Amino acid sequence: MKIAVDAMGGDFAPGVVIEGLADAIPDHPDCTFVLVGHEEKVSFYLDKYGLTGNPAIELFHAPTVCEMGELSTTALRGKKDCSITACARLLKEKAVAAMVTPGHTGATVAATKVLVRNLPGIDRAALAASMPSQAGRFLLVDAGANPDSDSLNLVQFALMGSIYAQYLFQVEKPRVGLLSVGGEDVKGNELTKETFKLLEKLPINFIGNIEADAAFEGGVDVVVADGFVGNVFLKSAEGLARLTMVWLKRVLKKNVFRFMWAMLAQNAFRELKAYGASDVIGGAPLLGVNGICIIGHGSSNPLAVKNAIRVAAECVRFDLNGKILAALDECGDIARKRHEKQA
Amino acid sequence: MKIAVDAMGGDFAPGVVIEGLADAIPDHPDCTFVLVGHEEKVSFYLDKYGLTGNPAIELFHAPTVCEMGELSTTALRGKKDCSITACARLLKEKAVAAMVTPGHTGATVAATKVLVRNLPGIDRAALAASMPSQAGRFLLVDAGANPDSDSLNLVQFALMGSIYAQYLFQVEKPRVGLLSVGGEDVKGNELTKETFKLLEKLPINFIGNIEADAAFEGGVDVVVADGFVGNVFLKSAEGLARLTMVWLKRVLKKNVFRFMWAMLAQNAFRELKAYGASDVIGGAPLLGVNGICIIGHGSSNPLAVKNAIRVAAECVRFDLNGKILAALDECGDIARKRHEKQA
Repeated sequence: MKIAVDAMGGDFAPGVVIEGLADAIPDHPDCTFVLVGHEEKVSFYLDKYGLTGNPAIELFHAPTVCEMGELSTTALRGKKDCSITACARLLKEKAVAAMVTPGHTGATVAATKVLVRNLPGIDRAALAASMPSQAGRFLLVDAGANPDSDSLNLVQFALMGSIYAQYLFQVEKPRVGLLSVGGEDVKGNELTKETFKLLEKLPINFIGNIEADAAFEGGVDVVVADGFVGNVFLKSAEGLARLTMVWLKRVLKKNVFRFMWAMLAQNAFRELKAYGASDVIGGAPLLGVNGICIIGHGSSNPLAVKNAIRVAAECVRFDLNGKILAALDECGDIARKRHEKQA
Repeated sequence: MKIAVDAMGGDFAPGVVIEGLADAIPDHPDCTFVLVGHEEKVSFYLDKYGLTGNPAIELFHAPTVCEMGELSTTALRGKKDCSITACARLLKEKAVAAMVTPGHTGATVAATKVLVRNLPGIDRAALAASMPSQAGRFLLVDAGANPDSDSLNLVQFALMGSIYAQYLFQVEKPRVGLLSVGGEDVKGNELTKETFKLLEKLPINFIGNIEADAAFEGGVDVVVADGFVGNVFLKSAEGLARLTMVWLKRVLKKNVFRFMWAMLAQNAFRELKAYGASDVIGGAPLLGVNGICIIGHGSSNPLAVKNAIRVAAECVRFDLNGKILAALDECGDIARKRHEKQA
């Protein structure tokens, strides 16, 4: 199995990526890693981590990088030779079974959309983000790849999310909820009302509408939403989490006694932070692309990179895409891409 | 000035409501309060709080209550004589200048929509919720009254939100942001892209798109979104806040030393909780209704009720609705209700 790894992705590339790769290699004796990035910079770090000449690594030179602040379209226009685009091409040509990038989410979505295309029958690929809950974790699909989606897209997101959850949570019938507002009362907006009727007919464990606050209590494995709503859901939680940390620091620094007391409890706060941490999760897959694609946080640390690589390899072994295609077949018309729709 | 107060609203009615009213009366010598609810139950608590015969209070009998778990339409169909509907009728007849209910948000939205109607020119009324940020607080409009809205609705939400923010935050030019995803890169979905162009032309201090996490950092006074997205934004933050408290308790109860240490720091945690508390805020106004309408949290405590009454009175004195109408006039066509639209 060959996996492309974007060495230039994220805020601390390529050092952090190569360190993560070094940690991952022993766990995947069946894999070869195509390390994509600027040859010189990559070689320097390969040497640093003792990986020069390692038979599990192939180098692929990509002269430019789509930086974190740049537009997504840069990967397709201004910097066609950037590492993300190179990874996407390798995936398209099936030179690799999977690609892993800790970098620019928008650029990856754009590059895979245009170069790799989706699995036959899948209209839009969706980002599946792992969110914390009182019971552990749940998946949010689409966490932000598509700002505009219709009910067919949501139906496909539910299907793909359910299959990915079978792998991620090791459950046979992941509980799938449709993100909505108003509970039984309002029943959502036009899009979710239409989607609800379709989801009821799918061969998935659809548990009905779920409100955003209820999702955090547990009881659901996959939360389905269009990319705009999903991204607001994700970013609102992230924003409130950061705000809570700011408040906690203010409260604990208020006077010297509190400060000393807080110092004694540092490991307690570290545990609190760990509840929300995503390094062990292993990045977010772009479900529906014709090739496994895993996107990490921009500020991925080596552990996060190692886990992203692990998830990529496991998705290939799990035959995620084969299962998605089989599920589409099983569903028939209800989940089919409308041929009159423009790609 | 007469203000209708729904005595039966919320989880602890009518005791909590009447206690809050008792605290509020001395602050508003220019107000008479029409206390709406079941005469017997109300009289019992008026007696308990020494308000029997108080000249600032009139009783209005409403035999039924739209309970928290019931459908919003109950207020208009099954229980037409419930306290919320009675308050809405008083507002419609201009027997009162404002109504305050700590109760069922959906029922209040439904009752005011059908019975009171909106200010001339306003297409949809919107719930304005106060959210915390690193810099203090910001308003979210629409926090959930309308699951489906178009760009005209959002333009009107921005206008009304800006005027309400002038009162609430005592600022001349509240900074108004449009809730979006993707920053400068994606620019949002079809609805927000269309709305953006219109907001740029309004006589408000429009600062552009704002992502959900950035809103919590401060730098914006009013965040505009359609009711579905707004409600997800609000509920996601609430859900994450509750989850954080669950984690904090787990972390602090892990062993006896941590537990003792946590006991010593109870006031620190109380301060942390207070950052997010909404009792001082005073409820959320339903902006655009042809009469001031303030909705509190269902579990309002007496302080929250007292503040909701204060906000209602201040909105009347501030002439919130007069200012909204003047602003609509000033904007002209760009903010005008399309007459061909069905009500």
